[in-house]
Amino acid sequence: MHTWKTLARRTILDMGKFLKVEVHTIQLPDGRTIPDWSWVVTPDYINVTAVTTEGQFLCFRQTKYSISGESLAIVGGYLEPGEAPLSAAQRELREETGYEAPTWVPLGRYPVDGNRGAGVAYPFLALNACLVAPIVADDLEEQELLFLSRTEVEQALDAGEFKLLPWALAVALALRTLED
Amino acid sequence: MHTWKTLARRTILDMGKFLKVEVHTIQLPDGRTIPDWSWVVTPDYINVTAVTTEGQFLCFRQTKYSISGESLAIVGGYLEPGEAPLSAAQRELREETGYEAPTWVPLGRYPVDGNRGAGVAYPFLALNACLVAPIVADDLEEQELLFLSRTEVEQALDAGEFKLLPWALAVALALRTLED
Repeated sequence: MHTWKTLARRTILDMGKFLKVEVHTIQLPDGRTIPDWSWVVTPDYINVTAVTTEGQFLCFRQTKYSISGESLAIVGGYLEPGEAPLSAAQRELREETGYEAPTWVPLGRYPVDGNRGAGVAYPFLALNACLVAPIVADDLEEQELLFLSRTEVEQALDAGEFKLLPWALAVALALRTLED
Repeated sequence: MHTWKTLARRTILDMGKFLKVEVHTIQLPDGRTIPDWSWVVTPDYINVTAVTTEGQFLCFRQTKYSISGESLAIVGGYLEPGEAPLSAAQRELREETGYEAPTWVPLGRYPVDGNRGAGVAYPFLALNACLVAPIVADDLEEQELLFLSRTEVEQALDAGEFKLLPWALAVALALRTLED
């Protein structure tokens, strides 16, 4: 099985670091060429399901522009240019919750859109998190830190209360890992 | 907690039905205005974890432009204009595998990108699927139908072999539902 080959790419829209759109010229395995394949460039990002030394899950109740009403959420944020996913996860956990964790489990690398790109999601599980510093979050949305039990997190996931695609995946994979 | 209000929106890039980019004027809860919030419009889509009457999971080995190498995959596709998510799921299952299923479990509604939109993912679980028709898939990528056991699917998920974000979530939620 052969993957597609990118013959050329050019940027047709540049909205800064959060969004660019490219057009790619692609060669299919059978030799055909697609001259105008659109491709979305957004930053890669991390999500962290963090569990404290007391077994509490660090969650948020918050809003997001694409979500109607409030949602349960977990720690998340974009990678800075050149930043490794694990470093970004540790930084965002500290900034958004004031917690640090000694034990980190990477839960994979997931391109967001099979056709258009739109970045890569890196979910993590952080264990034995402890409060070390004040919160310094700079997000535009309101968010409220919550401490949920594992049962509450499982029920919320099954009820669709983690309303964003990468949050739900990061929580689901963390729960699978904790079952092992 | 208050959500953001969209005061105005205009399309600044139109690549047809698969991609548009808008700029929104947004009012934050504190009254501030953001004049240039970028917003990505891509079609909503479904994914289907389908299990046959014999308990086999209908999967694919396939390529995708955003994925390096091959990946395990499940049924997926865009909603046609005006099409309900369940109808799209049933249509794509039939087109991509030749199977139909009498029992469908909707597994939620997940916006893809919290900031930029980029459509909504609708994962489904289909049970007791039976072969009824030949495959009529029109996807550009090569794909090979596989019949996996539940154990094989669980191991593949945990190994990161469902390499796309919405595939991994749909499989993880289906496995949770089957455990109940």
